[in-house]
Amino acid sequence: MTHTDTDDVRLARVALGCLAEPGNRELGVLVRQVGPVEGLDRLLNGSVSQRLAEAARLRLTDNVDARDLARRLLDTADRLGARAVTPEDDEWPRQLDDLAHISRAADGRAVDRDTDPPHCLWIRGDTGLDEALDRSVALVGARAASNYGTYVATEMAHGLAERGWTVVSGGAFGIDAAAHRAALAAGGLTAAILACGVDRPYPLGHASLFDRIGEAGLLISEWPFGCAPHRLRFLIRNRVIAAMTRGTVVVEAASRSGARQTLGRARALGRAAMAVPGPVTSAMSVGCHAELREEGTRLVNDYKEVLEEVGRIGDDLAPTPRGPDRPHDTLDPLAAQLLDAVLPRKARTAEEVAAVAGVSGRDARRTLPTLVDAGFVIEHDTGYRLAPKPS
Amino acid sequence: MTHTDTDDVRLARVALGCLAEPGNRELGVLVRQVGPVEGLDRLLNGSVSQRLAEAARLRLTDNVDARDLARRLLDTADRLGARAVTPEDDEWPRQLDDLAHISRAADGRAVDRDTDPPHCLWIRGDTGLDEALDRSVALVGARAASNYGTYVATEMAHGLAERGWTVVSGGAFGIDAAAHRAALAAGGLTAAILACGVDRPYPLGHASLFDRIGEAGLLISEWPFGCAPHRLRFLIRNRVIAAMTRGTVVVEAASRSGARQTLGRARALGRAAMAVPGPVTSAMSVGCHAELREEGTRLVNDYKEVLEEVGRIGDDLAPTPRGPDRPHDTLDPLAAQLLDAVLPRKARTAEEVAAVAGVSGRDARRTLPTLVDAGFVIEHDTGYRLAPKPS
Repeated sequence: MTHTDTDDVRLARVALGCLAEPGNRELGVLVRQVGPVEGLDRLLNGSVSQRLAEAARLRLTDNVDARDLARRLLDTADRLGARAVTPEDDEWPRQLDDLAHISRAADGRAVDRDTDPPHCLWIRGDTGLDEALDRSVALVGARAASNYGTYVATEMAHGLAERGWTVVSGGAFGIDAAAHRAALAAGGLTAAILACGVDRPYPLGHASLFDRIGEAGLLISEWPFGCAPHRLRFLIRNRVIAAMTRGTVVVEAASRSGARQTLGRARALGRAAMAVPGPVTSAMSVGCHAELREEGTRLVNDYKEVLEEVGRIGDDLAPTPRGPDRPHDTLDPLAAQLLDAVLPRKARTAEEVAAVAGVSGRDARRTLPTLVDAGFVIEHDTGYRLAPKPS
Repeated sequence: MTHTDTDDVRLARVALGCLAEPGNRELGVLVRQVGPVEGLDRLLNGSVSQRLAEAARLRLTDNVDARDLARRLLDTADRLGARAVTPEDDEWPRQLDDLAHISRAADGRAVDRDTDPPHCLWIRGDTGLDEALDRSVALVGARAASNYGTYVATEMAHGLAERGWTVVSGGAFGIDAAAHRAALAAGGLTAAILACGVDRPYPLGHASLFDRIGEAGLLISEWPFGCAPHRLRFLIRNRVIAAMTRGTVVVEAASRSGARQTLGRARALGRAAMAVPGPVTSAMSVGCHAELREEGTRLVNDYKEVLEEVGRIGDDLAPTPRGPDRPHDTLDPLAAQLLDAVLPRKARTAEEVAAVAGVSGRDARRTLPTLVDAGFVIEHDTGYRLAPKPS
């Protein structure tokens, strides 16, 4: 494939992502049959259902050329420090392709909305999508979360992030925000999957949270710049949260809840479907309990039980080393203290580690290199971070 | 069978209940093969395992004759207003016979203790066992219950008792006591299954609660008068709670808990096994959540969901009448108020109903007969009680 071919495909993918509402099954099937370039042409010359052709026409106002529109969006992305990722890119998370195959939920009920894979994802954040999402879990739940739910989401996200798992959520108030914040606080990776453009913070009160996620993690959306969130878009978006991750945990949910829809999608995709119980007296646990009364939803008390569901045997499921067998425990107190202050993903300078550990900079500068030699810590240009756990 | 034969069998059953620890499988199999009279003879002449013969000898101190011992126990029962019920009696709850067939739990694990049916039950309380236990549910749980657990047990027991279900529990502090008390408060039936003689309140602090249960409900034990509760006896007793009832609900339980054993027995017997969720932060819900993570335990939020598990279609599962279709709602306010103050099982005088309803005695005396005529209320010598719901 020549460079121009690649560009053609890329432009077509971006345009396809703009000209129909994401998830459209008809367009997805067409593109899988004839490829994105030919698929776009057919969409534009009207060789598709009237409904789809009409929708595309309405989105191409002022006789803009579809490929010009795509080029402009890619330019805007460049300018804003964002990027587009399409199925042809190496970093495309392959697990999203599973969406092409669900049309029925696991229990045989028809899935009510179009659930095809995205044509294009808009991204803020440096980490590669495939790397970030290979080991990821979705924590979702009520906007009107209780203190209890916020606490559980925080603990769970913190535990997962500390173990090197990416915490995926929807960027909403309540459970979502608690999950993102705790993952950031743990120095881990978090991804917010939005139902509007990544330049458009929604809810507005999360503008600075989204900035932090965009810097330390990933902001991801199927909708191009400027797109507004609509009620329906949250439901369309939920399939991506479910498909991207190895499992979805509903932390709190009222009886009617978008989080329950995400869980249903996860179940339909064969991903781990989990829910956190709560007091039967709490309206915010009604949805969780309803899900737990369904076949196939697993009750989870904490992040360890989440890892049991999503982890791979021999890797995440390896028995946690305990007691004198834990190499950490063989360290002298100063080294152990410093090691506890080193984060798994974000590098800290010796001085930062010292401040967090509550020891002198001199002690940190002297001891951290011994931790590097011992294989506990990796040295970067920007400082020190934890070495990956031996498998 | 002559009267004397019947007496012989009865004496043998009572003696068998005394001379071996309840649940002994060897003795149960023997009695099923040769009958209670011959079974007792073989136990006494030592044609059984050494362990069993030795245990019987130790219990027959001072060369007391086994049948004399039984006669004396029956006399004491008479004097104390108690009675013995054996498998030959009409009121014997047949569902206990299922215990003869479990030796393995539902999941194939061996059941660790002898689980044979009782030979004899000692009873305080007037209601027939079969009648009381036909529609019964066990609510069990932690002694060190939280306020939350106590609240849920109270609500659940109240709802079940109001619907005419017998609430069975173990008479312990915490969840058990809350369940018994709420059933009594609802004017319903409750049965406490004890692990010691029914003359011997344990815990002592429940002496007056047991007196109330003995008056309005049932105190039941396999152990004859004077027997002390031992740790092991609670575990032996639990199989009877599980077998007597249509299902067992664990309301709160720590990680290690007798209530979990009862639930395991219920599962092994094919009875409904249920647990109430709670905050994952509560040590008193750890056992419930562990059970809910097992196959076959059903999460229940309230008494209605318990009835879904244990009720019979078309009877207990009939949709609850609502709105203007509820006959209750066709009553004038005074009559409706009075009807709410009439209990399902315990008759109240017109004056008692008036006091509870907060209306004058004159109004009650005038209106209650119209509720009788309309079929809502039944008149007894001792006052008024609710008419059974039309099926």
